[in-house]
Amino acid sequence: MTRHIFKPVNYYISIGSHVPALTIAPGDTVVTSTVDGPGYDAEDVQVTPPGNPMTGPFYVDGAEPGDTLLVHFDKVRPSRRRGWSFKMVFPTAVEAEYVRYLPWPDEDDRLATWDVDLEAGTVTLMRPTDTRIGRLVLPAAPMIGCFGVAPVRSQAISTRTCSDHGGNMDYRGFREGTTVHLPVFAAGALFHLGDGHAWQGQGEIMGTGVEISLEVEFTVELRKGKASRWPRGETADFIFTVGNARPLDQATQHATTEMLRWLQDDFNLDPIGAHILLGHCAEYELANMYNPAFTMVCKLPKSRLACL
Amino acid sequence: MTRHIFKPVNYYISIGSHVPALTIAPGDTVVTSTVDGPGYDAEDVQVTPPGNPMTGPFYVDGAEPGDTLLVHFDKVRPSRRRGWSFKMVFPTAVEAEYVRYLPWPDEDDRLATWDVDLEAGTVTLMRPTDTRIGRLVLPAAPMIGCFGVAPVRSQAISTRTCSDHGGNMDYRGFREGTTVHLPVFAAGALFHLGDGHAWQGQGEIMGTGVEISLEVEFTVELRKGKASRWPRGETADFIFTVGNARPLDQATQHATTEMLRWLQDDFNLDPIGAHILLGHCAEYELANMYNPAFTMVCKLPKSRLACL
Amino acid sequence: MTRHIFKPVNYYISIGSHVPALTIAPGDTVVTSTVDGPGYDAEDVQVTPPGNPMTGPFYVDGAEPGDTLLVHFDKVRPSRRRGWSFKMVFPTAVEAEYVRYLPWPDEDDRLATWDVDLEAGTVTLMRPTDTRIGRLVLPAAPMIGCFGVAPVRSQAISTRTCSDHGGNMDYRGFREGTTVHLPVFAAGALFHLGDGHAWQGQGEIMGTGVEISLEVEFTVELRKGKASRWPRGETADFIFTVGNARPLDQATQHATTEMLRWLQDDFNLDPIGAHILLGHCAEYELANMYNPAFTMVCKLPKSRLACL
Amino acid sequence: MTRHIFKPVNYYISIGSHVPALTIAPGDTVVTSTVDGPGYDAEDVQVTPPGNPMTGPFYVDGAEPGDTLLVHFDKVRPSRRRGWSFKMVFPTAVEAEYVRYLPWPDEDDRLATWDVDLEAGTVTLMRPTDTRIGRLVLPAAPMIGCFGVAPVRSQAISTRTCSDHGGNMDYRGFREGTTVHLPVFAAGALFHLGDGHAWQGQGEIMGTGVEISLEVEFTVELRKGKASRWPRGETADFIFTVGNARPLDQATQHATTEMLRWLQDDFNLDPIGAHILLGHCAEYELANMYNPAFTMVCKLPKSRLACL
Repeated sequence: MTRHIFKPVNYYISIGSHVPALTIAPGDTVVTSTVDGPGYDAEDVQVTPPGNPMTGPFYVDGAEPGDTLLVHFDKVRPSRRRGWSFKMVFPTAVEAEYVRYLPWPDEDDRLATWDVDLEAGTVTLMRPTDTRIGRLVLPAAPMIGCFGVAPVRSQAISTRTCSDHGGNMDYRGFREGTTVHLPVFAAGALFHLGDGHAWQGQGEIMGTGVEISLEVEFTVELRKGKASRWPRGETADFIFTVGNARPLDQATQHATTEMLRWLQDDFNLDPIGAHILLGHCAEYELANMYNPAFTMVCKLPKSRLACL
Repeated sequence: MTRHIFKPVNYYISIGSHVPALTIAPGDTVVTSTVDGPGYDAEDVQVTPPGNPMTGPFYVDGAEPGDTLLVHFDKVRPSRRRGWSFKMVFPTAVEAEYVRYLPWPDEDDRLATWDVDLEAGTVTLMRPTDTRIGRLVLPAAPMIGCFGVAPVRSQAISTRTCSDHGGNMDYRGFREGTTVHLPVFAAGALFHLGDGHAWQGQGEIMGTGVEISLEVEFTVELRKGKASRWPRGETADFIFTVGNARPLDQATQHATTEMLRWLQDDFNLDPIGAHILLGHCAEYELANMYNPAFTMVCKLPKSRLACL
Repeated sequence: MTRHIFKPVNYYISIGSHVPALTIAPGDTVVTSTVDGPGYDAEDVQVTPPGNPMTGPFYVDGAEPGDTLLVHFDKVRPSRRRGWSFKMVFPTAVEAEYVRYLPWPDEDDRLATWDVDLEAGTVTLMRPTDTRIGRLVLPAAPMIGCFGVAPVRSQAISTRTCSDHGGNMDYRGFREGTTVHLPVFAAGALFHLGDGHAWQGQGEIMGTGVEISLEVEFTVELRKGKASRWPRGETADFIFTVGNARPLDQATQHATTEMLRWLQDDFNLDPIGAHILLGHCAEYELANMYNPAFTMVCKLPKSRLACL
Repeated sequence: MTRHIFKPVNYYISIGSHVPALTIAPGDTVVTSTVDGPGYDAEDVQVTPPGNPMTGPFYVDGAEPGDTLLVHFDKVRPSRRRGWSFKMVFPTAVEAEYVRYLPWPDEDDRLATWDVDLEAGTVTLMRPTDTRIGRLVLPAAPMIGCFGVAPVRSQAISTRTCSDHGGNMDYRGFREGTTVHLPVFAAGALFHLGDGHAWQGQGEIMGTGVEISLEVEFTVELRKGKASRWPRGETADFIFTVGNARPLDQATQHATTEMLRWLQDDFNLDPIGAHILLGHCAEYELANMYNPAFTMVCKLPKSRLACL
């Protein structure tokens, strides 16, 4: 149950079987930091090239293909005040014929800036100043946009996209207090994380949240000999499954199927019981429809499982 | 401001330019009833052939192509106790390879039955009795699955599907207290409604909610000379837009684009202001992924519009 | 075996249960004409409003729901020299991010014009004259873009789109010599046709072929008590099935499934035999990816059926 | 202009920055061999684990990111007689509701076997013997299912799928005589190849062609400082572009957009000229709709470019 303080030196823009940055044991906690998508740290200094650079990978002792890695996010906090976002909804989220009418900003003027005030718990639009929404204030809701384990077949997959190993899912639910379950494909699991957001809209339809560097604390556990097909997770109120694919239909199909498997494998539900329960109680949350793979989350309120 | 009591005689399984059942004026209220999808009424008697039979159409005096019809649902209440649903998640919502493992029930045993208790405010699973979920109890949350106006080009469109005229959208938000905006394509608008659910899961992934006959009361208004492209609506907490298409991506694109148009046309937002606001504050709700056209709803909390 | 000469008076922009224009018997031939999409006839006079106006409907004596209507296109010939097309590939066929770079022409300059010379068998670009392709010459290959029968449930469906009843499929293979099989949904079948092209590229990615008025001659037959789910057809060299839906995946799935059904139902193939044969010998042709529903055709060379 | 005889020792099941197997120069020819998908060689011995094992990678001297690698397939020949295929059309290619009716073979009886006779130029079904198609004979048409260069961002991507770097595209046009253009993302390009088919149906809807080991001879060239976004290629009769993505719509959009770019960048076409030419002359070929990314090819007959 060691508590590791880890300061990253190297960053990776793919999730794969890179040289482990630190070896940890199940039950251990890691206190570390992440840079933002373009590689800027807590001091607002660019310390690595852009592209969703990842902290890690962390090698979890004893993790083997076929296991499940559980990661509990103990703490997810912005580490500086300057946040930034794009300022136009991206073509993937609008009608094909409407793309020509989008208000494309100049290439050197693509960013909005935000003030992230952790004490006040707010995220405030600072620039542009000439819109009718003025200094829009949103509640801080920090989350981790991209994390995952080394994929199957010794692949190294870009942190722009996501798949069954995790990756750039940009789901608002990956925040402090959430536990994530990831299928292990490589010895040591090789957990990577980065791409923090102080706030993000559902669907990440602009292509960014309010991008920020983070202080993160997480604790890992290992479930031996049992692996899910797609990422799963748990919050205080929900269990959830994650599908990453295009089109959204397929992402939704993966998430729904994974939840049906979970209910039958681990909650001891008979098939028809699982189907009626999920069919009437599923909730869906669109995580991203910007990345090369879109992300849909299937959620089931824990209160609905009380009947079991 | 007449209050019409209308008892349906004929029902239609398409939404189109059928002979008006009743002519009403803007400001009028209609008190009427709907049968369930297979045509059973409040007495649980099949009074018309199956296929989402519609009550109406109601001809709204003065409505012309290019106007918007506003329909406020004053009252949406189940009119009997027996509800029914399917009991298996449908192939459209699961992975293609998983379809073969679905627990297909026998053709003559496809239905679950539910007891709808309006006083208790509950919907209780009565059959099957041999699953581990037992007598699952859900809160009653009555809604109207299918309604709409006569489509463009004098089309008559099956009540199995949906498009820009409304139709079988199966969105949980179409309930008591909601106001819907529909583009008018034909003189009199010709509003139809039916297909009540006492409860429905998000995405309607089984292909049904808890199907029920309804007592409905609604009030119409007319906005002259201004039409949306896709259905819009309003609840106490949200404004929302509705996209109906396949794949889900396209449904989401229609809903998002319609919201961008709405914000700029009616809320006086500049383009970049509209994009930042929606890009950071949009919420999405999957309404159905079972019907021939899927339905995605884009919602914006009214609280986020307070900045204007 | 009557040969009817039919001059259209009314045209319809939906395919549905409209008043029959002419009643014919199985075995009969109809000699008639069609206007182009905007309603211009052989004299280049606009005789009806735009929107793919249909000639017909033709009521086929004895046709009932559950039958198959066979239509043989005896003659499909342009009836004037002026053809026209759009001149830009449409957003549905390009990457979402590329749409902003498309060379949108001015609203009043959207059309290219073509000279259709039946004797020479050519279609020649006349305008614009300022492109590097000059007077591009293509072979005349006349086809019927839109035809079908009254749809199920008494629907009337816009001639902009297509479904299991046929409609705006824009497939190059619907030309002189082809026989089409359509499922009958309404008494008399109610066959409509129109929207001729003197030439069309695969996929109709501009949204038009070389649009033209036509002289058409067709002969109908009836197959009682046997209906396909999707349109089927036959040429000298191929049998084929047609899927109409979005996305293209679903259109392809309909066409493939329909061919598997056809092989097993009518060609006496065992399931594994049908699967191996189609799996190794299927050919696909993208018909349109512009209309509200896209069209994919699954073709099987008749030579591959010689083994049976 | 060296002619290298290369006998593979190691094989890779991802395409990435693996240790080069051989360094070659632009203009050089490589004579080598590939094993089939499960790793069986010309002697029908399994020499490496399954999963589309790749021969290579070949490091091309002087190739740098931003260049284009041209690969000419001089010779693509089966190196043994036993071919095999699946024998059922896969769920991705049929209607969701039809999946339950597919004739799933037993897990240990999933394969059909074929006799590949290069002298006769035929591929003959040997097993199963109990279908109505008997000993179906198809013409041998050898092709390379999977090849590509190391992807962007130092990724290593599974040979089950495909993207802008190439990969498992399963296009029938990648055969003897074809030249392929690939964007270079890593120093040396790192060309891999494997997964031969003696024959394949369009769309590879069974998930296999007639799988076989190959003898391959190819020659590389380098085009400095000019890279395409997606693979391009050339045969005697066509130029073509390749899109790899899901859904098919997106694959088609990539291929179409890439062709529009090519026509304008390298064939000196003005935008409207390129659009009219492609819009009227494009041909599409469905390569695969089985792999994690589907493949659509956009072809333009060289004869249509004669006008330039």
